[in-house]
Amino acid sequence: MPIDPATLPLPLAATPDAASVLTDLFLILLAAKLGDEVFKRIGQPAIVGEILAGVLVGPSVLGFVEPGEVLEVFAELGVIFLLFWVGLETRVSEMREVGGPALRVGVAGVVLPFAGGIGLALALGESSDTSVFVGAALAATSVGITSAAMIDLGLIRTQAARIVLGAAIIDDILALLLVAVATGIAASGGIEVVELLVISGLALVFVAFFALGGTRFMASRPQLLEEPRFSESPLLPAVILCLGVAALAAQIGLAAIIGAFLAGLMVAETKEQHPIEDEVAPLYAFFPPFFFAFIGIQLELGTLIDGGTLALLGAVTALAVATKLLGAWIGARGIAKREAGIVAVGMVPRGEVGIIVAGIGATVGAIDGQLFAVIVGMSILTTIAVPSILRRM
Amino acid sequence: MPIDPATLPLPLAATPDAASVLTDLFLILLAAKLGDEVFKRIGQPAIVGEILAGVLVGPSVLGFVEPGEVLEVFAELGVIFLLFWVGLETRVSEMREVGGPALRVGVAGVVLPFAGGIGLALALGESSDTSVFVGAALAATSVGITSAAMIDLGLIRTQAARIVLGAAIIDDILALLLVAVATGIAASGGIEVVELLVISGLALVFVAFFALGGTRFMASRPQLLEEPRFSESPLLPAVILCLGVAALAAQIGLAAIIGAFLAGLMVAETKEQHPIEDEVAPLYAFFPPFFFAFIGIQLELGTLIDGGTLALLGAVTALAVATKLLGAWIGARGIAKREAGIVAVGMVPRGEVGIIVAGIGATVGAIDGQLFAVIVGMSILTTIAVPSILRRM
Repeated sequence: MPIDPATLPLPLAATPDAASVLTDLFLILLAAKLGDEVFKRIGQPAIVGEILAGVLVGPSVLGFVEPGEVLEVFAELGVIFLLFWVGLETRVSEMREVGGPALRVGVAGVVLPFAGGIGLALALGESSDTSVFVGAALAATSVGITSAAMIDLGLIRTQAARIVLGAAIIDDILALLLVAVATGIAASGGIEVVELLVISGLALVFVAFFALGGTRFMASRPQLLEEPRFSESPLLPAVILCLGVAALAAQIGLAAIIGAFLAGLMVAETKEQHPIEDEVAPLYAFFPPFFFAFIGIQLELGTLIDGGTLALLGAVTALAVATKLLGAWIGARGIAKREAGIVAVGMVPRGEVGIIVAGIGATVGAIDGQLFAVIVGMSILTTIAVPSILRRM
Repeated sequence: MPIDPATLPLPLAATPDAASVLTDLFLILLAAKLGDEVFKRIGQPAIVGEILAGVLVGPSVLGFVEPGEVLEVFAELGVIFLLFWVGLETRVSEMREVGGPALRVGVAGVVLPFAGGIGLALALGESSDTSVFVGAALAATSVGITSAAMIDLGLIRTQAARIVLGAAIIDDILALLLVAVATGIAASGGIEVVELLVISGLALVFVAFFALGGTRFMASRPQLLEEPRFSESPLLPAVILCLGVAALAAQIGLAAIIGAFLAGLMVAETKEQHPIEDEVAPLYAFFPPFFFAFIGIQLELGTLIDGGTLALLGAVTALAVATKLLGAWIGARGIAKREAGIVAVGMVPRGEVGIIVAGIGATVGAIDGQLFAVIVGMSILTTIAVPSILRRM
């Protein structure tokens, strides 16, 4: 009976495959850690150092590391553990207090960049398919980047941070709808109203189920994750819950990180909160650098170095910043001026969300190579700029 | 400018890809944790529960999870963090004390199973290529399984455990040479003596460099990984060192886990040892279950359920146990009888090593589907049996 080598377990420990994957993970973690330390020492935000470390080891400069499936999974787990951590630091009661402002900031902060992106693309003569994707890529705030910057600056427990966090999660849900709209238009030229209603209904039920029911359930059973009921340490049960809710969110088409945040909110309601934070901390130290470095690794500087492309990058970035600032500022009316400023600036980074939307646009043929590079560049520029500005504020 | 979707970052967070990878990771961790807890409660070794959980969710029974590249990387990191942990718990001076017995046990414990495997395969009418691979697959002890069982039983700091550990590492180096021999015979019909000398020389230099020079260097600079010299916590520097030495070991063709163990030995020499163990513990809790479950996931029960194949499995397993027990027992002459018994039994599990060797044999065409399933089955049977026997001893 002959055997097909492709169906066999790769003999990882003894082949160049194992060596190259391990070498990639080693180089990324080393570069990110060095970038982090160097940026801290020159008084700059650590995550910017990690993103630039990714640019350095990635295809743009040294070419040591190429994007690939394994690295994407590590990057995804990086932002999952980041949002799980943010959830652990957040009480659902605190989120409820900022519900109104967060909703206004989230919605206004999506509508303006979306309209602006469509307008700019149409003005440049792009098709309506392409224009809707450009609008969607400009719409969503990166929860991951914003949270990390807030943690870095010690702001994560402030009211402004919670408004930004809530608004960014609302943005993620709205972005999901916009992508569904854009994909529908690219595929069939029209919008499937029923499908949109189903997606948005599912997203709302999912968030409400875990944020309200899940946290109440955990609060009523604070010993659930603890010895000797299930385990000698609450870490693995908590991590399993995180992966489970994140996977479920991804299965219904929602961003996995929303699930991770909701799982963090649930675990935060148990009495175990403090020891769990100590135990989650090493996972939170290990995985997120892959997320930040991977943003840099996805950049292709070569495609951007060209007069017309650079001008387009400048225009798209300026528009992305101006429309998000203005939208969030309008949404934040009614809260203190300094806080509203922090909220507006905190909403600017696009990070992974813009890149993901552009990637979907590219796979359906609505975004070409130049536009893809421009959107990745815009995401990185908005992401790099904001932590330094927040620090000064 | 059109864009090739294959070159794009997959829009992970919003596609079924992310959902399916996260779901796999969630299911494996959940199943492994449940298997672990159930087996502990019925007084059986936890790692057996994790392996059987992998059999359960894998293609053999429920078919929820298929082996794939991402899972292999998680399994590989599982055994890397396992051996890093074992290294952290070991002092190089303690390893040096058991050098003589470990070398004798390792060599005698390889020679007998290797000769036995070749003999059995030739007697069954297999070609010489195939026979050499069967011998090599029977030769090597699984450092990962043995270490985990010793940790489970609280034996990791005993002299017997150190002899087994040292002997298993020597086995890994010898297995590397045997695989090189077997691959050379399958490819060209002969043995490349020069190549073998280069491989073995490189392996010895690598181990000596890190085990002697590396540990001495770290012992003389116990503050190296500590704040504020490089980092606010010694965790990431230690993990980066672990991945770096593991990747280097894999690059020169040695098992990555030997590098991870050497890195652990080095970090153990710093004064930071205790806080580092607390911080590494969560990574040691998170990754190794993927390693144990993956062993079970690789099993294809369907191929084994057949009279002739089952008889072959029985013969190969009996031979694997008898030759390793006898060889290790002979090598362990001179140490106390009870300890020699623990050493001999502790050398029996083949775990991942047999599977890896069989996988290489299959990719060069020397091992067919039936033999592959038999060797995986033998690896799992020896692995499942030993922890219970050690516990009784």
